[in-house]
Amino acid sequence: MAEPLPDLIEEIVTDSMGDDPATLLATLAGQDEVYIASLLESLPVEKRLAVWEGIPRDRKLDVLVEMRSDPREILIDNTPHDEWASIFADIDAEDLLELLDSLPKRLVDMAYESLDSKERKYFREATQFPDNQIGHWVNHEQLVLPSNAKVREGLRLLRRDIPQHCDSIFLVNRSGQFSALVKISHLFNAQDHVSLFDLSEESVTTIQGADDTMNASLLVQRSGLASLPVVDENNKLLGRLDVTSASELVNEFYERQVMASAGMDEDEDLFSPVAKSAKNRALWLGINLLTAFLASWFIGLFEGTLQQVVALAVLMPVVASMGGIAGSQTLTLIVRGLALGQVTPANLRALMVKELKVGGVNGVIWALVIGVVAYFWFTDAMLGLVICLAILFNIVAAALAGVFVPVILDKLKIDPALSGSVILTTVTDIVGFVAFLGLGTLFLL
Amino acid sequence: MAEPLPDLIEEIVTDSMGDDPATLLATLAGQDEVYIASLLESLPVEKRLAVWEGIPRDRKLDVLVEMRSDPREILIDNTPHDEWASIFADIDAEDLLELLDSLPKRLVDMAYESLDSKERKYFREATQFPDNQIGHWVNHEQLVLPSNAKVREGLRLLRRDIPQHCDSIFLVNRSGQFSALVKISHLFNAQDHVSLFDLSEESVTTIQGADDTMNASLLVQRSGLASLPVVDENNKLLGRLDVTSASELVNEFYERQVMASAGMDEDEDLFSPVAKSAKNRALWLGINLLTAFLASWFIGLFEGTLQQVVALAVLMPVVASMGGIAGSQTLTLIVRGLALGQVTPANLRALMVKELKVGGVNGVIWALVIGVVAYFWFTDAMLGLVICLAILFNIVAAALAGVFVPVILDKLKIDPALSGSVILTTVTDIVGFVAFLGLGTLFLL
Repeated sequence: MAEPLPDLIEEIVTDSMGDDPATLLATLAGQDEVYIASLLESLPVEKRLAVWEGIPRDRKLDVLVEMRSDPREILIDNTPHDEWASIFADIDAEDLLELLDSLPKRLVDMAYESLDSKERKYFREATQFPDNQIGHWVNHEQLVLPSNAKVREGLRLLRRDIPQHCDSIFLVNRSGQFSALVKISHLFNAQDHVSLFDLSEESVTTIQGADDTMNASLLVQRSGLASLPVVDENNKLLGRLDVTSASELVNEFYERQVMASAGMDEDEDLFSPVAKSAKNRALWLGINLLTAFLASWFIGLFEGTLQQVVALAVLMPVVASMGGIAGSQTLTLIVRGLALGQVTPANLRALMVKELKVGGVNGVIWALVIGVVAYFWFTDAMLGLVICLAILFNIVAAALAGVFVPVILDKLKIDPALSGSVILTTVTDIVGFVAFLGLGTLFLL
Repeated sequence: MAEPLPDLIEEIVTDSMGDDPATLLATLAGQDEVYIASLLESLPVEKRLAVWEGIPRDRKLDVLVEMRSDPREILIDNTPHDEWASIFADIDAEDLLELLDSLPKRLVDMAYESLDSKERKYFREATQFPDNQIGHWVNHEQLVLPSNAKVREGLRLLRRDIPQHCDSIFLVNRSGQFSALVKISHLFNAQDHVSLFDLSEESVTTIQGADDTMNASLLVQRSGLASLPVVDENNKLLGRLDVTSASELVNEFYERQVMASAGMDEDEDLFSPVAKSAKNRALWLGINLLTAFLASWFIGLFEGTLQQVVALAVLMPVVASMGGIAGSQTLTLIVRGLALGQVTPANLRALMVKELKVGGVNGVIWALVIGVVAYFWFTDAMLGLVICLAILFNIVAAALAGVFVPVILDKLKIDPALSGSVILTTVTDIVGFVAFLGLGTLFLL
């Protein structure tokens, strides 16, 4: 069994293994590449580089492939130039595609030179698709036979080597077009002379190379098969997408969503250099600063009112917060629905009606609660009424914004998981402040 | 190929298929259960029930199994009692476990009665584990042989039936303890009389029934195998975890994280009844209201200052927003690291130092920018200085809180993805307001 990651991190960080790197390397020798990649990501840069140096060259490629881009690039930048020839010794097209964005141009060229002609062809085919299309991530280790092959030939093929996560043989015609899929398990009971085509599945989902990675991956996950064929626009077989790659792509999708909600990307390194990390995050802070200044500008319109009724300034965060929270609940639900294809123009109206009703119910309840609290706090019935109306108005507006902001962003091909919440809270902040201070100006002066 | 989900949703919602349900049912007949489940989740309740009524009884169980709890429960509540006998006709232990939380007690009992004795045993075994442990979700369709079996017996077993996502035979000793795993592909080249044990894998990761679902699923995803054996504390084979179940569990984990960030759970229905949805969300609004009032209370301490320097009230949102954003960036990074086991007591110190440095750099930059803007806006150099210092202080405090809030929550076994952000913004709001208004009181009065 693997030593739990946290224990090993502790031993390395606290140097409890002593100065002798041999013990550590012996421990790592028994671990798979995913484990080593995760360990390296968890170490401060100095320790990370020390461990990296000790990893045998013939494992370095596989470890790099499993890492996130940011921590990976630190290792790449610190690998002596003379090591690369041995690191690239067994590289294939898929490895190179995985590392493509992390390697400097000259190393990409060097790796490309190490590929044989078949792998070069795969590499060129894949780079015709951008990395958000599944054609970029095709697996070429597959079992392929001509459409007229018999069970005998199928069994012969199986005896050679079965790739990981491969439970079927693909049949192609003479032009290389996909024609059918035969499950390996169906060969066990069949006579040698039977045509494979007669054993093939009735209906098989094929994936188009230009399909979106997330949608294609979900198709594989729900197919019940270990992999699905990927074809180009002429139905020519490009390769396959297996469940492991599909899972990795789906995991990445979700991680990207989680990180995007804070304006970061999924490759962010726990221990990235300070300058790089500060730069990555500065943009998001800057965008949010603009929206905060916008909200301030609206507040500034009511300076006179605030001067006379300072209680309004005290209660401003309550109005903004309730709108922001209510809106983000609707937003989160809609963003998920959009990602799953469950929110469409057809059901948008029904969704909006439902969210407005939910907003209405919660708006009334919390408006009353807050109104009563404000009344007792400042012993001012009019102030209670003003905040009560402002909260109700803002929660209902938040429901509307929570539906429309992500839908419009999605239409504009902007990821609503990234920019949805900053736009939403800008709307709820401004609506909340203007409603609250505006009503205050009308009723309290 | 499947008709795209959005198109079908539109046809149903707009009634463009006409009043005749036969067309729709013919369309659905060619679709898998995941597709139908997703369609039902996307429909307003009335349409959802109409479509549900038309689905053949022998498919209803499989559709229910694929749905989220909230939309599923609406269907269960609206299924006539006399249908359940036929719906449960082919139910097995895994289906019942999946539906367990959604079914009323009397239907659980009825379904349990339909299980044969083997399935009842599986069901009882599984319910000994809570649903956050992998033992609850074990797959019992597996290939098992005694440890002394030969290749001949292996091939005979394969000829009968190979379950989905199963690429190996498990060997067990006489007490049912797991002893080895043989890849099916290794049987093709072997002689009939060879012992299966001699063909088995050198080292295989076994999963403990009490293991956390997420960790176990990640082990399967990275194993390179279609499934891993699950054993109890005495190494007795309970069943296996295959890549499809693992992917579903991982997807659920991520979805839970995304929904938790808005105080909802992953079973939230797009079209849940208004009362239910309002109730689900009210708690989160209430918690956030308490924290907003807390922030207001701190602002209230400076009423006198606000009355004299109304510009402070205008700029308050800027201070709060910058702290909240900077803190949530750190928080998001740490929450991910905790979920992956990459953040540990050993590297916490190094992480804190790095985050403080990043906070320091961004703090200085944005403090200067905001100070200058405030100076020109209100032509008040002292005000510029006050907000400059408050921003710097708040961004650095946000970095500290971003590291410590999730780590402490994790120690207390509270999900930091759920409660991390509300606690964090409470801290940054209060620190920001107190620093800003406190400095304002010192320097501007």
